[in-house]
Amino acid sequence: MVSPTGSTYKLIYFDARGVAEATRFIFAYAKVPFEDFRVPREDWPSLKEETPFGQLPVLEVDGKQIGQSAAFTRLLAKRFNLAGKDDIEQALVDAIVDFQKDIQAAMAIWWREEDKEKQTKLRDKFFRDDLHQYLVILERHLKDTEGSGQFFGAGGPTYADFSIACFFFTILKFYPAILDNFELLKMHVDRVHNLPGIREWVEKRPKTEM
Amino acid sequence: MVSPTGSTYKLIYFDARGVAEATRFIFAYAKVPFEDFRVPREDWPSLKEETPFGQLPVLEVDGKQIGQSAAFTRLLAKRFNLAGKDDIEQALVDAIVDFQKDIQAAMAIWWREEDKEKQTKLRDKFFRDDLHQYLVILERHLKDTEGSGQFFGAGGPTYADFSIACFFFTILKFYPAILDNFELLKMHVDRVHNLPGIREWVEKRPKTEM
Ligand SMILES: N[C@@H](CCC(=O)N[C@@H](CS)C(=O)NCC(=O)O)C(=O)O
Ligand SMILES: N[C@@H](CCC(=O)N[C@@H](CS)C(=O)NCC(=O)O)C(=O)O
Repeated sequence: MVSPTGSTYKLIYFDARGVAEATRFIFAYAKVPFEDFRVPREDWPSLKEETPFGQLPVLEVDGKQIGQSAAFTRLLAKRFNLAGKDDIEQALVDAIVDFQKDIQAAMAIWWREEDKEKQTKLRDKFFRDDLHQYLVILERHLKDTEGSGQFFGAGGPTYADFSIACFFFTILKFYPAILDNFELLKMHVDRVHNLPGIREWVEKRPKTEM
Repeated sequence: MVSPTGSTYKLIYFDARGVAEATRFIFAYAKVPFEDFRVPREDWPSLKEETPFGQLPVLEVDGKQIGQSAAFTRLLAKRFNLAGKDDIEQALVDAIVDFQKDIQAAMAIWWREEDKEKQTKLRDKFFRDDLHQYLVILERHLKDTEGSGQFFGAGGPTYADFSIACFFFTILKFYPAILDNFELLKMHVDRVHNLPGIREWVEKRPKTEM
């Protein structure tokens, strides 16, 4: 679908929010039309080899495929003024998204553990020790912006806010108490989900577990 | 130290190449002066809490601290024309760096395993199955650029080349045979290490294990 930049956008992912939902938030907030293509699981094996990194999501910009959600979400963020107001703020905002990747990598360590008993041990340790540290750091970043706790960047919402809010939205579904001592982060999830354009998207989007 | 952009740069890391070496390559290639500050291990505990994410490296730009190596390396890359020639190429180049993070996250799973026996099993599986897939994909990206296998971007070297080449440089130290069937990637490591400015840096840099 043709957007204000003159480009057409097709987002290819599974029928899930996952690591593609922040991208959908950008389109919703910037009011940019895009094709929200959801690959049925049974079609994936034949498609896998054709993707840039053997995984989804993929964004097609004017037919050109770009892989890696953070990379193409950043591209869209730059196009629609959601990447930070100057190059320093862009770096600070990019850093939040990279930190989220660190958190996800730490979660993958227990997530992918096949031994159930060991998984529980690792998961409990993660929630008790590591996650707490991560949340303290994230909340400090939120507090430290000139926007005083509203968004991670000083100049209003950026793609980092969308990325973090989508991440916690899903974690909260599975572990509702996780942000109980992190009021600022909890409010941030709600704030982002109630932004103009995003609120409407959240109401009408396909309901999926993840 | 003052650079052509009028900014002063101080890179703070341990006495290691690690995830900071690609940043040093940028300074070397762009001929931009910077302070290469290496924190002695014994000073780290008292410094940790002061850093943006509780970790190193940190880049100070005009005294302002930025954490997360990929984020501030990208900032420098944009300033010194090493980030891709337009926004699409920037996204393609960013994606390579994100893919490297996926590889590192997969390595962390066995790297951090404390049970030695299990670690060996996981590590062997990684080298046999996963790494091979990653290398096939990476080499395809290298082949597919207009630069026909020279660099990951079409318009000459970018920070993604520096990041990938530094990563394999260290892996090859520990596992010298790893790129034996990936001639293009092997040549890429050498090509980057012999770029003007970088070759001189590599000769004079502090010798460290990692
Ligand atoms: N770093 C990648 C990760 C992508 C990823 O993990 N994709 C998963 C789904 S969330 C996938 O494609 N899984 C199917 C497969 O690997 O075959 C990104 O952010 O785009
Ligand atoms: N995603 C971060 C990772 C940084 C990281 O893992 N830093 C390690 C050294 S390579 C560290 O600071 N370790 C000491 C600690 O965590 O206390 C980046 O790329 O900057």
